[in-house]
Amino acid sequence: MAVYTEVSDETLEAFLEAYDLGQVLSLKGIAGGVENTNYMLHTQAGSYILTLYEKRVAEEDLPFFVGLMDHLSNAGFPCPAPIRNRAGDALGKLCGRPAAMVSFLEGMEVKHPTPDHCFAAGQTMAKLHASAKGFQITRKNALDPSGWPELAQAAQSGADSVEPGLAKLITDELKFSQDNWPTKIPEGVIHADMFKDNVFFLNETLSGVIDFYFACNDFFAYDLAVGINAWCFDDDLSFMPEHSAALLAGYGSERVLEAQELKALPTLCRGAALRFLLTRVNDWLNVPPGALVVPHDPKAFSARLRFHQSAADATTYGAA
Amino acid sequence: MAVYTEVSDETLEAFLEAYDLGQVLSLKGIAGGVENTNYMLHTQAGSYILTLYEKRVAEEDLPFFVGLMDHLSNAGFPCPAPIRNRAGDALGKLCGRPAAMVSFLEGMEVKHPTPDHCFAAGQTMAKLHASAKGFQITRKNALDPSGWPELAQAAQSGADSVEPGLAKLITDELKFSQDNWPTKIPEGVIHADMFKDNVFFLNETLSGVIDFYFACNDFFAYDLAVGINAWCFDDDLSFMPEHSAALLAGYGSERVLEAQELKALPTLCRGAALRFLLTRVNDWLNVPPGALVVPHDPKAFSARLRFHQSAADATTYGAA
Repeated sequence: MAVYTEVSDETLEAFLEAYDLGQVLSLKGIAGGVENTNYMLHTQAGSYILTLYEKRVAEEDLPFFVGLMDHLSNAGFPCPAPIRNRAGDALGKLCGRPAAMVSFLEGMEVKHPTPDHCFAAGQTMAKLHASAKGFQITRKNALDPSGWPELAQAAQSGADSVEPGLAKLITDELKFSQDNWPTKIPEGVIHADMFKDNVFFLNETLSGVIDFYFACNDFFAYDLAVGINAWCFDDDLSFMPEHSAALLAGYGSERVLEAQELKALPTLCRGAALRFLLTRVNDWLNVPPGALVVPHDPKAFSARLRFHQSAADATTYGAA
Repeated sequence: MAVYTEVSDETLEAFLEAYDLGQVLSLKGIAGGVENTNYMLHTQAGSYILTLYEKRVAEEDLPFFVGLMDHLSNAGFPCPAPIRNRAGDALGKLCGRPAAMVSFLEGMEVKHPTPDHCFAAGQTMAKLHASAKGFQITRKNALDPSGWPELAQAAQSGADSVEPGLAKLITDELKFSQDNWPTKIPEGVIHADMFKDNVFFLNETLSGVIDFYFACNDFFAYDLAVGINAWCFDDDLSFMPEHSAALLAGYGSERVLEAQELKALPTLCRGAALRFLLTRVNDWLNVPPGALVVPHDPKAFSARLRFHQSAADATTYGAA
């Protein structure tokens, strides 16, 4: 939870002179968001999220992220729509940082989803994959298996202080991923971080998906693997098979998964658990002094990883 | 900047069942606010601020704070209006904490006020003093001179590490206040914290005053002294006499200050500077591990205090 950069009334007004949004009504810093500074902005024209990109986001990736939201919203996908200024630019500079404004999406995170919520999440994920077709910019997944050895190395010495046995779990799983990662399954643009807090519902209906700052080109089924990790474990970290079956069924209602994708699903679920385990262990071990953010507990993902290691095949996840 | 208590969708919905605000549309934690957790809440009925009172606010004071906002808004003063549930209660419980909802006020803090902004702030302060008449609950100012010796004692050993000479400045000023504090000047309900971030403007017009959590019964002229400290020093901590004259003129346009109030003004300005110096030094020296808030620099108020020590009389502040 953080506002890393304070935006004053006069700075904001100068920035907004390039836009057709009428008078500023209010600006409130939003708590939450590890990567960036987010404000809720009210103007006479409506409600917006104003984001200042802090150094953790690579500036060269911003045309991908902002362009993707533009492409998706133009295709009718429910996500924030970037706002262009009169010169046609959706990316600007504010307080020395790259900045963008997007439309504000109403909706609430569902803390304890039902299978119906999971069906909607899976269906919307498939729609995202389809809607992104034709988007011209590509972005490699920086956190795919080729990025994990460096994270595993950084986590190695401190991992057992987080949880006894964690260093070996990571080393063994890294080797498994390298030996078993699929190569020839359908790919395209994926969200790669479709956790519950990035999916909004209004009155039991999915109203939108936010936070495209991990989106990239990768296997579609890897997005599903992230989704299984995110939506299908309860507060006690027990796997919820009905939720997983609903997520897969929702996805399948829009796009039929190929046999090779289903075959790879347990490996992809293991990899997704490892990916979040690795970033969480490193964040946990490297909380900077004066940090404004409390890191997530890595153990939530070592538990998931151990579950996936026990999965025989995709039927564990409810694949029909 | 902090959200100390996370409110989930299901907890919020259960809380709002007692209100007539329609369906929840969104809930965003607001960065900022040292004392409490604040959310911006959108429902079908409108926009609200939902506040959960954390332990730094005394629960027995909440009927005063919430009742005052209710009284003031009913009197037409521009401040957040508490929202009552169907049982008529404006104070409830959420996540084990006392909680209240108030109407959302549009408006922006003015970072660099002009004398016109100061006139409006002074005028609105006088309106607040008048509008509070008839409010039945009283609250002693916990941070008046009787509360300062304890704070000065707590700050004593660390003060010079903040700024050389600060311990003596505090000790001497505390004695001065005790010897010179006025006794028989007009009093009533004051805001006691009318800093720039608590006063909103829309298009150069003052749109509202927020944050009544230091409000109390004390001298009206002490509120002005807080205002002079808050609005009449520039970024370099230089006193701005035109701003101060405008603040006093704005106040005077609603209520004529008595001779005894003007006579006491330099002493009250010194006291107000000491009050914020004391709390800031203690906050500075006692940042808890894992704090979510960066403390304000105490030196901004030692500089103000030294200026006020040099003030000959109220004409320094532009009193006519």
